[in-house]
Amino acid sequence: MSHELTSPHNSKIKEGIKLKERRCRDQTGLFLIEGYRELKQAAENGLVFQRLFICEDFFLGVNEPALIDFIADLGAEIYRCSSAIFEKLSYRDRPDGLVGVAVQMKQKLPVLMATLSHNPFLLIAEAIEKPGNLGTMLRSADAAGVEGVIVCDRCTDIYNPNVVRASVGTLFTQPVIEASGRETLLSLQEKKIKVVAATPSAKIDFTDADFTGAVAIVVGTEQLGLSDPWMHCADIKVRIPMQGKADSLNVAVATTLLLYEVIRQRKGPQLWK
Amino acid sequence: MSHELTSPHNSKIKEGIKLKERRCRDQTGLFLIEGYRELKQAAENGLVFQRLFICEDFFLGVNEPALIDFIADLGAEIYRCSSAIFEKLSYRDRPDGLVGVAVQMKQKLPVLMATLSHNPFLLIAEAIEKPGNLGTMLRSADAAGVEGVIVCDRCTDIYNPNVVRASVGTLFTQPVIEASGRETLLSLQEKKIKVVAATPSAKIDFTDADFTGAVAIVVGTEQLGLSDPWMHCADIKVRIPMQGKADSLNVAVATTLLLYEVIRQRKGPQLWK
Repeated sequence: MSHELTSPHNSKIKEGIKLKERRCRDQTGLFLIEGYRELKQAAENGLVFQRLFICEDFFLGVNEPALIDFIADLGAEIYRCSSAIFEKLSYRDRPDGLVGVAVQMKQKLPVLMATLSHNPFLLIAEAIEKPGNLGTMLRSADAAGVEGVIVCDRCTDIYNPNVVRASVGTLFTQPVIEASGRETLLSLQEKKIKVVAATPSAKIDFTDADFTGAVAIVVGTEQLGLSDPWMHCADIKVRIPMQGKADSLNVAVATTLLLYEVIRQRKGPQLWK
Repeated sequence: MSHELTSPHNSKIKEGIKLKERRCRDQTGLFLIEGYRELKQAAENGLVFQRLFICEDFFLGVNEPALIDFIADLGAEIYRCSSAIFEKLSYRDRPDGLVGVAVQMKQKLPVLMATLSHNPFLLIAEAIEKPGNLGTMLRSADAAGVEGVIVCDRCTDIYNPNVVRASVGTLFTQPVIEASGRETLLSLQEKKIKVVAATPSAKIDFTDADFTGAVAIVVGTEQLGLSDPWMHCADIKVRIPMQGKADSLNVAVATTLLLYEVIRQRKGPQLWK
């Protein structure tokens, strides 16, 4: 069923706009997903939609109707908006005419830990500040094939619109879990998963450490690095060599280097060991 | 000599604000540098300053006066602004009270090519769209110790405020040159520097190619990849393995993986060759 929306004072529109704010996301357990690519990943990966706002004036291709039908079949109410109204909902410079309201996944740490492979590969992100960085880290985690991402002691919530955007939908293609640092650390130790911490003070380069076993790559904020409990409990500390004048890399960039080193080491004949 | 500015209609303030626009940067050959860290790198690396706007209300530490004196000694006029005026100049969410106007470096490709080491290591960025990505790439290039970055057929100019910001000042710590793709390709071929292109269609993983000789890592836009001339002339084509559902990595992230693979291969006993 499809509805027409022409007034910006409509309560559904107002609720949608409010979801740009974290407080409203926390209170309602809902969040916004904007964009064809992101919505497609969400729909294909079992997200529950409450409604979908569309504005045909902004459509970029010819595949939108099929995706809208798919999301409607999943139970979402479809609202057609004028471009003026849609622009209030959108958080992009160049909207593509699709914004959905979905239910937060709220996956649980114990479930993830109970379903790991025999040689787990996890990413732990502690207190990442910028949504764009967290989203880019999720994109890299998907590409590297990690079994799950655990966001500890969040600064930005994973349902922030800019996390969804920078992740290009990979927030939905893999388990992404929010948990406390303490709970996470205990779970890793129980499963005998090695904690790998990157820090400038480490003595070995990341390409010289052994990542072939069960590992959790743990990264923290750019400004402060990892908190004391993680540094204290790390099984392996590695540094990323810095040859220039700057003293650090972008946190999403540094994370990806570590993730892909795991892939390199786990692949094929390891003559370099 | 220091001046007080209290009117937003002052011509120096108006000129400064206009430098946020590319057209004004292109016309004047000037650009803005905001932030303590970025200004310090610029001053220490020989940038020529025209003026420096300061607002003590926003200072975060105690080192600002020393940096201001240093930049004044380099010939800049110092302007003290009210916070209301300073906020019009600033392009940051949290300004730190320092915005400089400097002369664009305009380094030349032939000079870079004439001063390369015996085993060059370069980064070529073609038509990168987002200033934040280009800045992050410069930060990674500095960290990886490349001998120069060549920005070909620019979409974003290297003097865009968000390039400066995301580079955290590494725009000034290394040669960063704007040149045409044609000119760059001919120079690389003349110097027998291998062109390495990353493309999903390549048959070998980036960790299996040989990057120990003279190399130029060439990266293009996320949407379209590298242009035909670069793809056609590439000496080595490599892919970055993608294990998940997304089809690409963030361009700055992908670039850094390639740059650090060069470091890994060039370092120490290369048993994996």
